[in-house]
Amino acid sequence: MIKEITFQELNPSQFINEKVNEIRDIVGNGTAINALSGGVDSSVVTMLGHKALGNNLKTVFIDNGIMREGEPAQVSGFFKELGVEVSIVDARDSFFTALKGITDPEEKREAITQTFYKDVFGKLVRESGAKYLLQGTILTDVDETVAGIKRQHNVFEQLGIDPQEAFGYRIIEPLIQLRKDSVRKTGEALGLPKELFDRIPFPGPALSARVIGEATPERIETARKATVVVERLLKNTGAFQYMAILHEDRVTGIRDGKRDFGQQIEIRCWESKDARIATPTNLPFETLQKLANDILDEVPGIVSVTYNIASKPPSTIEAV
Amino acid sequence: MIKEITFQELNPSQFINEKVNEIRDIVGNGTAINALSGGVDSSVVTMLGHKALGNNLKTVFIDNGIMREGEPAQVSGFFKELGVEVSIVDARDSFFTALKGITDPEEKREAITQTFYKDVFGKLVRESGAKYLLQGTILTDVDETVAGIKRQHNVFEQLGIDPQEAFGYRIIEPLIQLRKDSVRKTGEALGLPKELFDRIPFPGPALSARVIGEATPERIETARKATVVVERLLKNTGAFQYMAILHEDRVTGIRDGKRDFGQQIEIRCWESKDARIATPTNLPFETLQKLANDILDEVPGIVSVTYNIASKPPSTIEAV
Repeated sequence: MIKEITFQELNPSQFINEKVNEIRDIVGNGTAINALSGGVDSSVVTMLGHKALGNNLKTVFIDNGIMREGEPAQVSGFFKELGVEVSIVDARDSFFTALKGITDPEEKREAITQTFYKDVFGKLVRESGAKYLLQGTILTDVDETVAGIKRQHNVFEQLGIDPQEAFGYRIIEPLIQLRKDSVRKTGEALGLPKELFDRIPFPGPALSARVIGEATPERIETARKATVVVERLLKNTGAFQYMAILHEDRVTGIRDGKRDFGQQIEIRCWESKDARIATPTNLPFETLQKLANDILDEVPGIVSVTYNIASKPPSTIEAV
Repeated sequence: MIKEITFQELNPSQFINEKVNEIRDIVGNGTAINALSGGVDSSVVTMLGHKALGNNLKTVFIDNGIMREGEPAQVSGFFKELGVEVSIVDARDSFFTALKGITDPEEKREAITQTFYKDVFGKLVRESGAKYLLQGTILTDVDETVAGIKRQHNVFEQLGIDPQEAFGYRIIEPLIQLRKDSVRKTGEALGLPKELFDRIPFPGPALSARVIGEATPERIETARKATVVVERLLKNTGAFQYMAILHEDRVTGIRDGKRDFGQQIEIRCWESKDARIATPTNLPFETLQKLANDILDEVPGIVSVTYNIASKPPSTIEAV
């Protein structure tokens, strides 16, 4: 049973000191490795590990090819300013190979998870020689699993590491007693930049969740370009979440007087407190027109743009 | 060369008298047949033919299964009130059989045209024994074809009638000297009800142009139900045209707490003078919400609704 540290109980600087010492005690003169995604949890773990181990922590940022425009450079840039070196690992080919031919949303998610753990991060862990693995697991992640030991065993399994054979691997989870609000509070105390916390919620399967149908490099690039426009024009709306979705259906368009059987982008912009119920944002008509015009101008192959007007339920926030 | 009667030149009651006499002279004691679609041209031809021939004109309304809710009954009802008997021919099976498995928009159009002429109307013409065929061709239809004779030959070919073998068939085209505005003026003088002229433009391939992908009976029924909502809520907007389009892409929804992989309806509502350029109508947000809610409530299988925000060009008025 893991003992929760509540938001009220949390003393961030004391918590940071304790965790830094714990990590140092466990790893000693060894080396540790962790994967940074740019989310709050993995960012806080990276800072704690860096404070504890300095250059004995290897932090990797895995570019899976389905991130937003400039995301790997932006995240590693934040950490460079804090004195933390992050290795960007180009694993785009591995992910696109795994996603080839898959159209079912659940199968896409599974392919991304499998590729991340087994093919890419598992290999990095084994090759690094590091025996200590820092993970940003939080209490909410644990709630639904049976017990800590079984869960940790599962992580090894996901990484393709047999703990019997490869004796001595150990997983360190410094945030396991915290919930999201406490992680944020700790992150602020660690000096993580405001932009890291302000970034809009983004799904695990990243842009592959923003294309209906197969996530090819070309289709992901189309969704990425449309996402640039949507984030640029909607970032100051105060909306809960906003996104561009590439449809698979073909619709008729006309370019230079000729029929152009093209693609459609759907924009969703949500008002919500906790994502359980959500309604479309009442955007000014000029904003909708600007969104459509900029996407039609800047995103090759798009001839049609729509705006979602259905609420959740029965809709959901993401389309796939 | 056909001599145009301009809108300014047209004296409707004189024109009606002349055409009624012409039809009577040509058909004599024979019988004639025509197909009524409910459009202005075929409606005017039906009235002229009825005035000239009474019961010696057989008017058929072919229910192709891809019309809007209640359309066959509504159109035949208009004519019943004017004393004109219209036979509704249930040809839904023929059309759906021809549309089976077809997803390409051009192939859908072709299948509908072929089924109409060859399978359904051609057969009705041959079985009726009528040797005279009344058609609502107007001058605009002729503009792009070479000459009257070749065009009429083509009509026979479309109907699967060999004019050599089946000697004596004749096509009568009373509106061939008129353009659309003059046809409307003639229709008003004939006492056709205002509702016939006020109906929103509707494409030849009807609801099959309002489903992306295969036009099955089930998918057409979905588009039909959504069209009822859209026409009900937008009929007083004064917009140029409005429509509901059923997408083929599947999107995630949630019903009764469970994941429901459902379908999406796209609504388009256009401001335009002549359909060459068009912009989406700035509908009040409450109207958009009501459209979405009513469709989600009334149309089974729909979990998502969008509103088109792209202009023509590069979009087009219809999606397929």
